[in-house]
Amino acid sequence: MKVEKISDFTVYRLSIYLRCLDHLAVTGVTTTSSKALAHQFQLNSAQIRKDLTSFGDFGIRGVGYKVDELRNRLRKILGLYNVHRVGIIGAGHLGMALADYHGFPSNPFQVVALFDRDPSRVGGKSPQGIPIFTLNELKSVVAREDIAIGVLCVPAEEAQEMAALVIDAGIQAILNFAPVRLNIESGVKVKTMDLSMSFESLSYFLARRQPEVS
Amino acid sequence: MKVEKISDFTVYRLSIYLRCLDHLAVTGVTTTSSKALAHQFQLNSAQIRKDLTSFGDFGIRGVGYKVDELRNRLRKILGLYNVHRVGIIGAGHLGMALADYHGFPSNPFQVVALFDRDPSRVGGKSPQGIPIFTLNELKSVVAREDIAIGVLCVPAEEAQEMAALVIDAGIQAILNFAPVRLNIESGVKVKTMDLSMSFESLSYFLARRQPEVS
Repeated sequence: MKVEKISDFTVYRLSIYLRCLDHLAVTGVTTTSSKALAHQFQLNSAQIRKDLTSFGDFGIRGVGYKVDELRNRLRKILGLYNVHRVGIIGAGHLGMALADYHGFPSNPFQVVALFDRDPSRVGGKSPQGIPIFTLNELKSVVAREDIAIGVLCVPAEEAQEMAALVIDAGIQAILNFAPVRLNIESGVKVKTMDLSMSFESLSYFLARRQPEVS
Repeated sequence: MKVEKISDFTVYRLSIYLRCLDHLAVTGVTTTSSKALAHQFQLNSAQIRKDLTSFGDFGIRGVGYKVDELRNRLRKILGLYNVHRVGIIGAGHLGMALADYHGFPSNPFQVVALFDRDPSRVGGKSPQGIPIFTLNELKSVVAREDIAIGVLCVPAEEAQEMAALVIDAGIQAILNFAPVRLNIESGVKVKTMDLSMSFESLSYFLARRQPEVS
C-alpha cells in the first residue's frame, strides 16, 4: 500500500463510495460493480477501480464487488471502526451545534469536551450535556479524555493561536472551521472546511436556470 | 455545453480548482497548466482537462491556462458573480452559526433571514443582526427578500416537512444540514451536507498512524 501518496481527494472519494454502498445495503443490493456504482451515483468507473486497487484488489473479475465486504473494507481503511474522541475549541453557536451533531447512523466521532476562553461560558454545557472547559484545562482534559481530534470553531484571527494550543496539548488531527489557511508543522493533519463550497453546487444550478449574464 | 450531464462531483471539482487558482493568484502566479495544478494540489491532470473541456476550451496548447482568465470563467460557470440571497430554516445553534458565517473573501452568498417555529426566538436576531421570522411569514419574506436558497438547520424528523414549506414558498435550491435524505420532486435541487464526512479524512490519517487492527 502506497498510503503516503493517497490524497485528501482520494479519501473524500472513499467516503462517497461508502455512502453509496450504505445506500445499496439499505435497499437490499448485495453485489455491485464499478460500472453500476458509476451509473447509479454519477461517478467515474475508471476512477473507482483505480481508487480501490490502490488499497488492494477487492473485486472479482466478471462478478464485481460484494457490497457488505467492500463496506467493511472501506470502513476499516477510513478508520471508522475505532471511536474517535473529539474536543471542540470555541463554544459559540458553531461549536455548540457540532457538539450536539450526531450525523447519520454509525457516526464514530464522539464529542467529549468544549473549550472556551470566555469565563461566562466555562462550567456550562451544550444542550445535550457536553461540558465546557477553560483553555487552561486543554492539556489535562485532552490527556484524561483521550481526545484525538481537535475542531476549531473560533474566529479567523484566533485560529492560528488556537491551533498551536491544540497541538501543544498533544492533538495531531485538526478540523478547522475558521475561514483561514493555517500554517502547521509537518506531522500534524489539518483539514480546513470551507462551508461556502457546499453552496456552490446550488449556485451552479441556479446559474443554469437563469438567463446567462455574459 | 452538455450541462445536463454535469454531476455534483464535477461541480465540486470546479470549486476545488477555483480555490487552487485563488491560491496561485494570491502568490503571484499568472499562468499554469493541468500538470502543474495536479502536481501542486494533488489532483488528476487528465480529470482537470476533461472537466474544463466540457465547458469549452480554456487552455492554449503548450502554454496552459491564464490564471486570471480561468478564475473568471470558473466563477461565471459556478454562478458566483451573482449574489445569492439565502434564508435559513431553524434558528438554533447551527442556523445562527451559518447566518453569521462570512467564509473566505468574495463569498457571494448573503443570508438575509432566519425562520423558526419557536415563538420565543421569533422577533430576535443573530449576533450580527439577521432577523428571525415565523414560519408563517416564510412565503412573504422569500418573495420580498428575493431569497433563492433555503438552508435547513432543523432536526432530522422535521426536515421533510420544512423542505415542503420551503418549496411551497417558491425556493428551488435547498442545502440540507439535517442528517436525512429528503424525497423531493424533480426540478428542485437539494444538497445534503453530511458533516461527519469532513471528519473522515482525519480518521483515515489517524488510522494510518496507529497499529493496524485487522
